[in-house]
Amino acid sequence: MEITSMNNEKPSNFFTNGLLWFKSLPEKLFAKIVGIAKQFKKIGKDDPRRVIHSLKVGLALTLVSLFYYFQPLYNSFGVSAMWAIMTVVVVFEFSVGATLGKGLNRGMATLLAGALGVGAHYLASATGKVVEPILLGLFVFLQAFASTFIRFFPHVKARYDYGMLIFILTFCLVSISGFRVDEIIDMAHKRLSTILLGASVCVIVSIFVCPVWAGEDLHKLVAQNMEKLGKFLEGFGDEIFKSSEVEESKDAKKSLVDYKSVLNSKNTEETLANFARWEPGHGQFKYRHPWKQYLKIGGLIRQCACRIDALNGYINSEIKAPEEIKGMIKETSKKMSIECGKALKELSQAVRKMNLPISADQHVTNAKNSAKNLNSLLKSGINWEEINLLEVIPVAAIASILTDIVICVEEIGQGVNELASLANFKRSKNKEIINTKVVVEKIESNNNIEGATTQGSRKVHACSSQHDDHHVVITINEQNMKL
Amino acid sequence: MEITSMNNEKPSNFFTNGLLWFKSLPEKLFAKIVGIAKQFKKIGKDDPRRVIHSLKVGLALTLVSLFYYFQPLYNSFGVSAMWAIMTVVVVFEFSVGATLGKGLNRGMATLLAGALGVGAHYLASATGKVVEPILLGLFVFLQAFASTFIRFFPHVKARYDYGMLIFILTFCLVSISGFRVDEIIDMAHKRLSTILLGASVCVIVSIFVCPVWAGEDLHKLVAQNMEKLGKFLEGFGDEIFKSSEVEESKDAKKSLVDYKSVLNSKNTEETLANFARWEPGHGQFKYRHPWKQYLKIGGLIRQCACRIDALNGYINSEIKAPEEIKGMIKETSKKMSIECGKALKELSQAVRKMNLPISADQHVTNAKNSAKNLNSLLKSGINWEEINLLEVIPVAAIASILTDIVICVEEIGQGVNELASLANFKRSKNKEIINTKVVVEKIESNNNIEGATTQGSRKVHACSSQHDDHHVVITINEQNMKL
Repeated sequence: MEITSMNNEKPSNFFTNGLLWFKSLPEKLFAKIVGIAKQFKKIGKDDPRRVIHSLKVGLALTLVSLFYYFQPLYNSFGVSAMWAIMTVVVVFEFSVGATLGKGLNRGMATLLAGALGVGAHYLASATGKVVEPILLGLFVFLQAFASTFIRFFPHVKARYDYGMLIFILTFCLVSISGFRVDEIIDMAHKRLSTILLGASVCVIVSIFVCPVWAGEDLHKLVAQNMEKLGKFLEGFGDEIFKSSEVEESKDAKKSLVDYKSVLNSKNTEETLANFARWEPGHGQFKYRHPWKQYLKIGGLIRQCACRIDALNGYINSEIKAPEEIKGMIKETSKKMSIECGKALKELSQAVRKMNLPISADQHVTNAKNSAKNLNSLLKSGINWEEINLLEVIPVAAIASILTDIVICVEEIGQGVNELASLANFKRSKNKEIINTKVVVEKIESNNNIEGATTQGSRKVHACSSQHDDHHVVITINEQNMKL
Repeated sequence: MEITSMNNEKPSNFFTNGLLWFKSLPEKLFAKIVGIAKQFKKIGKDDPRRVIHSLKVGLALTLVSLFYYFQPLYNSFGVSAMWAIMTVVVVFEFSVGATLGKGLNRGMATLLAGALGVGAHYLASATGKVVEPILLGLFVFLQAFASTFIRFFPHVKARYDYGMLIFILTFCLVSISGFRVDEIIDMAHKRLSTILLGASVCVIVSIFVCPVWAGEDLHKLVAQNMEKLGKFLEGFGDEIFKSSEVEESKDAKKSLVDYKSVLNSKNTEETLANFARWEPGHGQFKYRHPWKQYLKIGGLIRQCACRIDALNGYINSEIKAPEEIKGMIKETSKKMSIECGKALKELSQAVRKMNLPISADQHVTNAKNSAKNLNSLLKSGINWEEINLLEVIPVAAIASILTDIVICVEEIGQGVNELASLANFKRSKNKEIINTKVVVEKIESNNNIEGATTQGSRKVHACSSQHDDHHVVITINEQNMKL
């Protein structure tokens, strides 16, 4: 098109372009529509709950709008039924927790601010028609100032931000309207009852029609993140020191970049945990499920992901270290990586099924033993005269980062154990047998354990268990920490 | 208190406790009030703009409520003035960008949905009183379903989420109200004009009374994050391989943990960039300032922070490497770290002042030369027979991570250069002289440059400059990339 336009002179150029544009319009429009339809399909396919959520919003709105259509209902509320519609639109959120949180915030704030607004109205109207607007203006100003400022308090912002907004809104509406409308109590009462009605419709539809629980999402997200890291570490074990000539499958490559999403999961986790705290007990989760522990585990997972990010840099670079050294650390590094991966996958599986993560401890122990082996291998040494230290650096760095990752995985394991004890995870039947085995192994291997990690004093959280059930498991962890 | 209660029998125990509780009540209440007052003070002190924002909200609400108090104004709008108050409460946000974004969203959505709602009402009412509510219900359901689903589109969620919400709300209110209220056009018109009025008051107060610009905040945040990393690296240069007996000052320790906040800044940056795009030109920023480039730089900064997090693990651990090796890499590592720190600080300063970051390139070059020196030192080697490889690992890891950090800092430098070219940063007067010097140095040192980084093929973004101004600087960067 551009070539044509360059050859012609200006006016016909303009018309030709215009004509071409008009001719291509239906095509473009069709392409655009197809593009949007594809996006619709993709978004629905990524999470089918989105389609259901949209249908639920439609349902709730249609239910509430019945108050307008049918006569006995409309007479009792009148135009105030508008507030019910407004409440449904604003309060209905994707998850039950978010909907409940907003609904309760809106209900409580309306009640409180309504009462205060009526009070302010009577106080102001007692002073006479001249002073009244001045006093009302002062009340509105002071209230808006104080409430807006309180919204900056971190714990208010996290849980009651919407409530504060509605508080300001309702107080202003009720106190100011009182200046013009006579039946202010009636107005406040109607507003409150319609809001409660709208909020109830939201909550009922949200809970009873294919509910989406934020808590469950958080639970799954944390388990999934652990699995992603586990997959990376297992994959890394296979990739490590591979000669660049071997062609890898695309699937294997993909599993190695999956972990990147873990690095930025903090915000999602915090939001979900915040919503989850509003939710009633559901499925396997009780009302006071230890949601905060998930945030702690999430933090440890991200710390591990950060180490893995450092490790990832070495996958695509060719490592020039002498074959002797490569061969020396290849097997043990591989084992460390794969055992850590297995431990994370096992922890993920345990969290997912809410079982005690027993064999994970075993994998961590194996990884630590490998770390110990690696260290003694490096200690025993070979003929150093032939070695160029520069070439050893990446190998040494990989070993060092892997040792770090073992510590991270152990901490994650402890976090999951704490969660298991707080949330009463089920014992699986073969627990005692495995535990005994682990204890025996630990006692045997505990004798020549010192000096295994040269980085020394990384902090390892002590595991505080209040449950006798897990006593054996946790004792093992405390012994492991000395490694 | 607990000891007393354990010695006494039950009933008197209860009364004593009750009495004690009552006695301590005023004290507790006072402590609580003092605590809240302290928190108020702290939050105001942390960012005094919060106090001003709260005052601005109070002012805007008081201004809008004048429509209720004064007669000619009230007559023209009536109860619809309520919508103006509602708009102010909901639309007024902390930054100009957020307020403008919400105001425009609300205004446009009301206009569109109002028109569609009126259309739906006339269409439905033409079918007669029996079919009308069914048809209206269908419209509401379909519209709510489609709009809710569209809210899941990522780019809609990012910029038009609030608009979609208001679209659903207004459409439902207008179309359903039409079933009961006769003057639907009048209603839609009044609603639109009061909302525009409320939104205008918000925008005017937000822009003309001590404005808070999201763009400026983003600009400062990115500069500040670079400075935090720079401070860490300078501090690390001093701390590295320090014997543990030397007591460090608490201030120095503090600057070494400041960087942690950088790791989680992604969300804040994205929100600010999103708001900034709504803002008109202000101060040094034009309307189409390249806000997206800040996100790119922010990503690179976080990548660097992740490496620094890995480095941080070595600060508190005692490194057992032989003094010989320590001494060998101490000076060069120190120089690398300090030069990277200086480069970051210089970049931060340049961004802050919107100057071209010239001497930063020099510092990066110095850091790279140090990396090269370190490598040749390691290559030249000492008597390897005496070395325990295990003890060399942490030293090697530090060297490796520092080399990585040099690459990260260079990428950040390139990002800032791109920003400088996109946003037309000012040239400082001594630019040419320094440039010439850098070029000469580069040409001199370019001869024996290969093999400096053993990790090889890290991706380094090519710098795309469209400005002749920066040609010299950018040429240097492209040469540097080979290092």
